Amino acid sequence: MAVVVQNIERADQTIIDGLGQCGVATVHEAQGRKGLLGAYMRPIYPGVRLAASALTISAPPCDNWMVHVAIEHLQPNDILVLAPTSPSDAGYFGDLLATSAQARGCSGLIIDAGIRDVRDLTEMQFPVWSKAVCAQGTVKETLGSVNIPVVCAGELINPGDIIVADDDGVCVVRREEGAEVLKKSRAREAEEEEKRQRLAAGDLGLDLYDLRERLAEKGLKYI
Amino acid sequence: MAVVVQNIERADQTIIDGLGQCGVATVHEAQGRKGLLGAYMRPIYPGVRLAASALTISAPPCDNWMVHVAIEHLQPNDILVLAPTSPSDAGYFGDLLATSAQARGCSGLIIDAGIRDVRDLTEMQFPVWSKAVCAQGTVKETLGSVNIPVVCAGELINPGDIIVADDDGVCVVRREEGAEVLKKSRAREAEEEEKRQRLAAGDLGLDLYDLRERLAEKGLKYI
Amino acid sequence: MAVVVQNIERADQTIIDGLGQCGVATVHEAQGRKGLLGAYMRPIYPGVRLAASALTISAPPCDNWMVHVAIEHLQPNDILVLAPTSPSDAGYFGDLLATSAQARGCSGLIIDAGIRDVRDLTEMQFPVWSKAVCAQGTVKETLGSVNIPVVCAGELINPGDIIVADDDGVCVVRREEGAEVLKKSRAREAEEEEKRQRLAAGDLGLDLYDLRERLAEKGLKYI
Amino acid sequence: MAVVVQNIERADQTIIDGLGQCGVATVHEAQGRKGLLGAYMRPIYPGVRLAASALTISAPPCDNWMVHVAIEHLQPNDILVLAPTSPSDAGYFGDLLATSAQARGCSGLIIDAGIRDVRDLTEMQFPVWSKAVCAQGTVKETLGSVNIPVVCAGELINPGDIIVADDDGVCVVRREEGAEVLKKSRAREAEEEEKRQRLAAGDLGLDLYDLRERLAEKGLKYI
Amino acid sequence: MAVVVQNIERADQTIIDGLGQCGVATVHEAQGRKGLLGAYMRPIYPGVRLAASALTISAPPCDNWMVHVAIEHLQPNDILVLAPTSPSDAGYFGDLLATSAQARGCSGLIIDAGIRDVRDLTEMQFPVWSKAVCAQGTVKETLGSVNIPVVCAGELINPGDIIVADDDGVCVVRREEGAEVLKKSRAREAEEEEKRQRLAAGDLGLDLYDLRERLAEKGLKYI
Amino acid sequence: MAVVVQNIERADQTIIDGLGQCGVATVHEAQGRKGLLGAYMRPIYPGVRLAASALTISAPPCDNWMVHVAIEHLQPNDILVLAPTSPSDAGYFGDLLATSAQARGCSGLIIDAGIRDVRDLTEMQFPVWSKAVCAQGTVKETLGSVNIPVVCAGELINPGDIIVADDDGVCVVRREEGAEVLKKSRAREAEEEEKRQRLAAGDLGLDLYDLRERLAEKGLKYI
Repeated sequence: MAVVVQNIERADQTIIDGLGQCGVATVHEAQGRKGLLGAYMRPIYPGVRLAASALTISAPPCDNWMVHVAIEHLQPNDILVLAPTSPSDAGYFGDLLATSAQARGCSGLIIDAGIRDVRDLTEMQFPVWSKAVCAQGTVKETLGSVNIPVVCAGELINPGDIIVADDDGVCVVRREEGAEVLKKSRAREAEEEEKRQRLAAGDLGLDLYDLRERLAEKGLKYI
Repeated sequence: MAVVVQNIERADQTIIDGLGQCGVATVHEAQGRKGLLGAYMRPIYPGVRLAASALTISAPPCDNWMVHVAIEHLQPNDILVLAPTSPSDAGYFGDLLATSAQARGCSGLIIDAGIRDVRDLTEMQFPVWSKAVCAQGTVKETLGSVNIPVVCAGELINPGDIIVADDDGVCVVRREEGAEVLKKSRAREAEEEEKRQRLAAGDLGLDLYDLRERLAEKGLKYI
Repeated sequence: MAVVVQNIERADQTIIDGLGQCGVATVHEAQGRKGLLGAYMRPIYPGVRLAASALTISAPPCDNWMVHVAIEHLQPNDILVLAPTSPSDAGYFGDLLATSAQARGCSGLIIDAGIRDVRDLTEMQFPVWSKAVCAQGTVKETLGSVNIPVVCAGELINPGDIIVADDDGVCVVRREEGAEVLKKSRAREAEEEEKRQRLAAGDLGLDLYDLRERLAEKGLKYI
Repeated sequence: MAVVVQNIERADQTIIDGLGQCGVATVHEAQGRKGLLGAYMRPIYPGVRLAASALTISAPPCDNWMVHVAIEHLQPNDILVLAPTSPSDAGYFGDLLATSAQARGCSGLIIDAGIRDVRDLTEMQFPVWSKAVCAQGTVKETLGSVNIPVVCAGELINPGDIIVADDDGVCVVRREEGAEVLKKSRAREAEEEEKRQRLAAGDLGLDLYDLRERLAEKGLKYI
Repeated sequence: MAVVVQNIERADQTIIDGLGQCGVATVHEAQGRKGLLGAYMRPIYPGVRLAASALTISAPPCDNWMVHVAIEHLQPNDILVLAPTSPSDAGYFGDLLATSAQARGCSGLIIDAGIRDVRDLTEMQFPVWSKAVCAQGTVKETLGSVNIPVVCAGELINPGDIIVADDDGVCVVRREEGAEVLKKSRAREAEEEEKRQRLAAGDLGLDLYDLRERLAEKGLKYI
Repeated sequence: MAVVVQNIERADQTIIDGLGQCGVATVHEAQGRKGLLGAYMRPIYPGVRLAASALTISAPPCDNWMVHVAIEHLQPNDILVLAPTSPSDAGYFGDLLATSAQARGCSGLIIDAGIRDVRDLTEMQFPVWSKAVCAQGTVKETLGSVNIPVVCAGELINPGDIIVADDDGVCVVRREEGAEVLKKSRAREAEEEEKRQRLAAGDLGLDLYDLRERLAEKGLKYI
């Protein structure tokens, strides 16, 4: 059952980059409010916004053996996505693994578990969204799999799916829906930019979105 | 039952500003250790200290319709205070609403739920204290109320009450007690400044607060 | 039962300083993966790495009386370690106590409870690892003890034990094991530095740690 | 500030009893989905359904002194409602206090904190809804208040308000709204009974509530 | 995007029944320690052990509209599996829906959210494994889907997959793996029964599993 | 470092039995409010009250190998006390281990982790206080220790210490303090019995404990 899938399809890089510019909230809305990982997935340092192609890892609790296996299969602009097979806050990943991953062009890490060496990772500018920061070490005893579908922080992620991440959290876009979601995301951005200017000028959302009538119909009373 | 109270009383701005200079811990102590919201209410970025007049919103779970309604009633230096009618971590508030609120002079947001667009809000310097950061969108389907008393993060907040917030959390001061609490807060600050200087010079709290005798009476043994 | 132990043994300062340079993850690994405090113990501001000698405080819930007692017994480079006798998130410690402790050369605070005046403590550069930030005040009613063994965030800490703390959390090293753990930590660092360079150059952990054969033996399949 | 309000108004006992027969879910719905305490408030043993008049206690953290004060003011069919002024899981209440309260006709306890002697309370059939079970003792050092409005598990409760509690949790009904809410609750029960019979006979909610058309309008696709 | 898949494949009922007799721990082990839902999924009353075919529901937060849609598609021995599209503890399900589902032969409910009417459900012997008990009502405003793959409590569940549930929690078995997992589960049971008898007779696991030598090799010291 | 201490001292059985009759709350109070394990340690079924001598196990996360080692060293009326070296909710213990332990006269299990086979353990009347119920299996890969001091649910427990457990939770009494604590516990019980009778007869705690004067001194106002 422990397998490494060596060849996976990835989305077009221009689509990935486009989604990265849009950010999590926009992409999440544009694709119909789906794909958002659990809100407990937080960045270890603020200010990063990125998108990348998922290289998935299914790992046993407290065992980071498969991370080493996964790194061999990284292509530039991939992001590692690790889901433990049962819950764990242990520190699966630190500065040595980050050094190795970064040397292969890895964009970062999404991990539904713990990481360590936060100071080093911050200095290296290796972005991580994790469930916990924890120095607890892991073992290398039990196999897992690389590049199989995983459930990470409550969402199904297939290898090659597109991960969008920023200070708001993490969102997954299906590889085959990337182009369509990017189109909708850009449309949404354009529309929002126009609204932003009107709101900044003092217009009210009540008027902009034409909400007054429906509020009255539902029975809102002003007193 | 869904109402918007259009005219509320606000505290004198000099009182509000004075309380903002004192900060949460001092004000909380000065008013007899009451009014502190749950410690899970955290700022989205550090370093802000403010006080403002509460404009309250009671909103259904995962529904931000009433925020649009509330913004129309903002006066400069008001702070929005949103309490969901049942628990929700959804992202009720983001950069468009912040743009609109800021255009009306709003000081920030206190929300016992989630918010999104953290990076934008930080750049805009629109301060928020929230229970969660979460990109999950909300709907506009069900009415709530504006400027009624709400329970937010475990504390009753009336429209026009004074909100004090900083890196330590959030505290509410009753509007009608503002002047008295400010007076006590300033007295406390003056007293603390004197103590700070003595402690910085190496004096011990044991002597400053005259604790040795009572410790001995209670039976503390030195060995 | 309430006692203050006035004379405790401390580790050699050069050993303490050495461990501080190694950091939590390295020290934790070097001593056989023990001594790590619960991952919920987080620094109030990032970027600090230190080691210091533990001055322990056992305090009742919501009562900070014994902190004043403890401060009298601080020696330069000691760190206060407070464990409540039952769980509490109250704010036991703020800027006045920090001023007093810092005047006596105290290195910081480890507290399995809450603290307040975060902004002031950050400006003073007084580092704290705590369970919570909470402005809630405490009382001075019930005795506790100073410099007895305590369980703090799940780990036993004796007075004079060495505390190592950084952005990854907090680890305790037994005083009498300090020299040995430092030796092992430095050996680990040297070994890691070599690996880091090879990984940075693009070598794989699979080869560096010679993992391929054992993975195959365990049955990992590449497809 | 520490006060005991000796005379409070209570609702009519027939209204209270009627609400008790309806149960939490029905009453909560009937009054417009308000008044529900946090879902972490759980009964210490299953199978109880009751309503009673609230006698409120505002108590300091880890201090049960005011419970003794409150018991003197109990009337038969009152229920004690205790809210700590800051969060606490300590065991404020056990078999002795229950014996005393029961001797005065008390119906039970709602407590946003811990209790102990669960086995005894169960044998005595003294029902409790609490946040925690915890043997940790409390002190009698600091005053609180009796029969003032409190926020308990996120809801405002006034002395004399009606508490409805069962295996689903706890709900508060304003004293002055009791008669109206009872009327609506009974109407709801009657309506539900009819629906229950039709559903038990195999009718579908889709038809009973006439949902098919609106589902189609919203775009639901059957495939 | 909101769809109802009307025809799904189900596993053979004898396989489902066989897995139900084995229980969660055995089945989970037999299929290689996969498929276990989060441990927070607890039964509302103890003592039930069952297996059933999953009829899946993807529902918006705080909105139970799709449960009505799903019930029409129940076949005898199906179990409803509801996953909200964003986290919610609201009470999606109560005695009326249970009456309707039971009338159609439904075996129970697995829900990563809240339920209510616990007392009625217990009396009806309608088993539920849920994240929360909460009387908070839900709305019928937004569409979801029926019989699409969902992630429930951290595990992917396809319509027609086999759900095994008992006092230990909930486990999912892929429909197409049911026969194989049943075979392995029964083998495991047979093997365990033999061990149980030897252990009951006083034999040690150290001898039964032949552990002594490997413990010595790893360096265990007896002192 | 992995050791099995074969000979430990145990307290006198009559002392252990006596403490078991007193229960957790009484013993905890009698020994000065210390020794209480975290309130998250809950019994898997209600109604048990016991005391037993601790046989301690320090085990790696998700690894139950040492339980087999420990069982060989059980004496009748011992209770197993397992503390993982880093947090884990995995199911370390089930019906086979319970069968083996029970065959050796073991009184039960205290475990700061998960257990499984709850239904079987309940039928066998093998009592367990645990942090979680979770069917997730564990491995047998890494050594731990038996009969060394451990920190379990926040309290230090030495081998041979006395564990008292009931529906209120778990408390540890030092072996060498057992006789003294039993004496104090019985005195407390006698005193409480007298109070219970007076309270049951309608006397008030205010009078029984002579609280009125001190309340007045502190400033309590009756209005």
